[in-house]
Amino acid sequence: MKLYLCIVLLSFLPWTICGEKILVWYTEGSHWINMKPVLEELVHRGHQVTVLTPSTSMFMNTSEQALFDYEPFPVEVSQKEMEEIMEKHLHFAIYEMDHMNVLQIYMKVIELMETSMNVSLTLLDGVVKSDTLMNKLKAGKYDLLFSDPIYPGSDLVADILGIPLVFSLRFSLANNWERHCGQVPAPPSFVPGAMSKLTDKMSFSERVFNILFYALNDAVAEFSLTSKLDEYYTDIKGKPTSACELMGKADIWLMRTYWDFNFPHPFLPNFKYVGGIHCRPAKPLPKDIEEFVESSGDAGIVVFTLGSMINNLTAEKANMIASGLAQIPQKVLWRYSGEKPQSLGANTRIYNWIPQNDLLGHSKTKAFITHGGTNGIYEAIYHGVPMVGLPLFGDQPDNMVHMREKGAAISLDFNFITSEDLRDAVNTVITDKSYKANAMRLSAIHHDRPISPLDEAVFWIEFTMRHKGAKHLRVEAHNLTWYQYHCLDVVAFLLSVTLLLLYLLLKTCKFCLRKCCGRKDRKTKAE
Amino acid sequence: MKLYLCIVLLSFLPWTICGEKILVWYTEGSHWINMKPVLEELVHRGHQVTVLTPSTSMFMNTSEQALFDYEPFPVEVSQKEMEEIMEKHLHFAIYEMDHMNVLQIYMKVIELMETSMNVSLTLLDGVVKSDTLMNKLKAGKYDLLFSDPIYPGSDLVADILGIPLVFSLRFSLANNWERHCGQVPAPPSFVPGAMSKLTDKMSFSERVFNILFYALNDAVAEFSLTSKLDEYYTDIKGKPTSACELMGKADIWLMRTYWDFNFPHPFLPNFKYVGGIHCRPAKPLPKDIEEFVESSGDAGIVVFTLGSMINNLTAEKANMIASGLAQIPQKVLWRYSGEKPQSLGANTRIYNWIPQNDLLGHSKTKAFITHGGTNGIYEAIYHGVPMVGLPLFGDQPDNMVHMREKGAAISLDFNFITSEDLRDAVNTVITDKSYKANAMRLSAIHHDRPISPLDEAVFWIEFTMRHKGAKHLRVEAHNLTWYQYHCLDVVAFLLSVTLLLLYLLLKTCKFCLRKCCGRKDRKTKAE
Repeated sequence: MKLYLCIVLLSFLPWTICGEKILVWYTEGSHWINMKPVLEELVHRGHQVTVLTPSTSMFMNTSEQALFDYEPFPVEVSQKEMEEIMEKHLHFAIYEMDHMNVLQIYMKVIELMETSMNVSLTLLDGVVKSDTLMNKLKAGKYDLLFSDPIYPGSDLVADILGIPLVFSLRFSLANNWERHCGQVPAPPSFVPGAMSKLTDKMSFSERVFNILFYALNDAVAEFSLTSKLDEYYTDIKGKPTSACELMGKADIWLMRTYWDFNFPHPFLPNFKYVGGIHCRPAKPLPKDIEEFVESSGDAGIVVFTLGSMINNLTAEKANMIASGLAQIPQKVLWRYSGEKPQSLGANTRIYNWIPQNDLLGHSKTKAFITHGGTNGIYEAIYHGVPMVGLPLFGDQPDNMVHMREKGAAISLDFNFITSEDLRDAVNTVITDKSYKANAMRLSAIHHDRPISPLDEAVFWIEFTMRHKGAKHLRVEAHNLTWYQYHCLDVVAFLLSVTLLLLYLLLKTCKFCLRKCCGRKDRKTKAE
Repeated sequence: MKLYLCIVLLSFLPWTICGEKILVWYTEGSHWINMKPVLEELVHRGHQVTVLTPSTSMFMNTSEQALFDYEPFPVEVSQKEMEEIMEKHLHFAIYEMDHMNVLQIYMKVIELMETSMNVSLTLLDGVVKSDTLMNKLKAGKYDLLFSDPIYPGSDLVADILGIPLVFSLRFSLANNWERHCGQVPAPPSFVPGAMSKLTDKMSFSERVFNILFYALNDAVAEFSLTSKLDEYYTDIKGKPTSACELMGKADIWLMRTYWDFNFPHPFLPNFKYVGGIHCRPAKPLPKDIEEFVESSGDAGIVVFTLGSMINNLTAEKANMIASGLAQIPQKVLWRYSGEKPQSLGANTRIYNWIPQNDLLGHSKTKAFITHGGTNGIYEAIYHGVPMVGLPLFGDQPDNMVHMREKGAAISLDFNFITSEDLRDAVNTVITDKSYKANAMRLSAIHHDRPISPLDEAVFWIEFTMRHKGAKHLRVEAHNLTWYQYHCLDVVAFLLSVTLLLLYLLLKTCKFCLRKCCGRKDRKTKAE
């Protein structure tokens, strides 16, 4: 019927959109960068995409993309506040953390998480506490809500609107959401907690650390996030509501990694691994850059960026880096917005912006110096470029551990490196052929899959809309209590039965023995 | 280089095969039916497929398919012996089992498993104990071994030849192989053991049963299969060898189910669910059958088969069935090779063979009466036909539980039904529209996937050959002991540390208290 209507409408009104209506949850930074290609493809396939956009946003630019409809809403938090919080996060992660003990780090993490949570809830207020907006969304009759759960509340709104929900997620701290809300089994003996900097091959002490890491982060998450969210959700729904339970109702989790990057681990039918969605073949370079690249001769080039968050460094750091880069035979393209370092070599050029993907895909590129963001790493994997990591914060150190373990990168500690360390690392990943070979191996794994990550992501979003959900992929574990899940009640029952039987057996034996001996006693007495 | 050679050769010898060389392990029955479409597609794609074929085989016919090369080998077991064993299995499952208690059943199961294992090892002797054959296989330089592990030994031979291994598996009893050798997590609280006849929604007592089912079958498998295989493998390899460990080295497990049939459960990156490989769109029917089908009018037809194993029934059973079928308004096509039952209705026709898939895909088909083999069920799912199950043995009762739970079938007990039960069941699945709706829902899930099951199976076989294995998909759990996997050593350590700390705390408190009180005592005394 829908198809028929579609054909009829199309014959009269060629501009009528006959696809489904997709509501997109607000997000920021690299999360938005990862969602955009999927949304663009969905629009391209005839769907109508509406993006919820808070009045205060650092990355979502309503004027940027005429492709999407935007649903702006006012929020009671200023751009300045948002930027200050981000600055605080970065400062802690890059400069403060290394001078703190574990307790201090966790106290600070809790403080920062609570601040973030307060901002998140203020943003969420802008949606769920606005009758006008909620009524508009209800009237919008959307077919699906698509969200990166990093900003909470999408599951609550999907639940209120009664529409299917698809998540796009890179990871959660110590896999908390995947394990507790998504019900993905993660035996701590070979599934390292996200951000633990562990690999899947763990020594005894690393396994001890991993278990404690899971436990500690679960406690932090419960204390500083979940309990607050539960309260908020309960308040909105007017009945006891668990945020994790609502999150667990997501139809599909599109995980932004794949087995080129991940250590293999158990997962569930509604978890789809679509890492590298944004990767593209390289386009030709702008003329000036191409000329510089070509001038590198056989030595080739090195591409260097610390990502979109870091535009500036201390003069000391910048000089240390520049001096290290000056000592390598390659030409270097460095994305950097700070003041030109004095020690900058003739082989190094600084750019405010570089076409990173096109450079990584260039035949002259020998290595990639990166902060270790997932997006950059995936571009390097896509093009098979070995890496030197200068991870700064968040998942970056952990990401670089993945690449180091897979033999495609060397990872350095940004706070303690010297220019010689940087020089040696770059030289090593270029001259030791194993790094290139491993990067090419990961690239082969990345490219050689039955369906491209973008197509797979779009497929499962469309599948969820076609079938009004994907509940046939949802494990029954969601409906069990923790003790039922681990069969503790069954074990207790079986143990009790065994003990009871043992007791009865003992009693019977004792009784028989007494009978036997008693008879003997009586016999002896009678004799 | 290979590609270059290929192009050069092709330009001179158009008949030269430039694909990879695939060795296929011998198997029987529906296992062979399931492997054949994959092999045909592989041949179609230019690979050279060589099938190991024992001189005694009930299903593998070396003259049947000119597509494949055959590598026949003599075995010291006669066709008669093989058929007798199969007959014994069937007789036990269909007639004896219902009159036995659990202990008797398990004793019989162990006896039958041991007999089968002895035959399997005799077949295996034919390969690994024949120097001629082993040398020929080594010289053959195969790129991959493809096998259904139901006949053991393929992992041993893949190991000896040093080539990648891909399994095609429907299931193992209580998921023993998947859990223990494949390392797939299967929490017994929501993952029912294969053949347990349980669903993923279990009551407390069902969970107790499931745990006991797992434990009991693990013990049976260990006692009657694994220990013998370990001995055999150790003998051949000349060093302690675990069959399960070798099985766990398989690069890819192609599981012959999908989420249209399975209850959702955890799995691993090297497990691919490709159920329905053999399903095809319906072809036109032979003229006489088409005429009979068309003569059914609006009432439509019912397709009835008990599979390729059951060609005969007792006169009593056959009459009971015929009488039930005579009472339904549909025309019935019954695949049956026994004597024509006296009570056969005018609406029922008996055939030695029916084009099952083409009939199930016919628009007049209203229901499918089936023994519940996976292949038949998948054809019914493919075409969206509701089912009445008359499961007999093996996985059939369990398969029908899946279809019943998903609302697409009624399952009857073959040993205790009356003609009225059969009539009512067929009438119900036809008149109660929910059965058709659910069958169509499963059909939609079956068809609506990113890549067809056949293409997916072929993709992962070719992937494994292209990359000389798929070890990047293999979880680290394979390299852990059972207590490491469950972190029992870590838990013991953490518990010890906690107890030690508690002890020290108590001691310190006691010491302080004594110090304190002692001083007071002394003070009092001094006063």
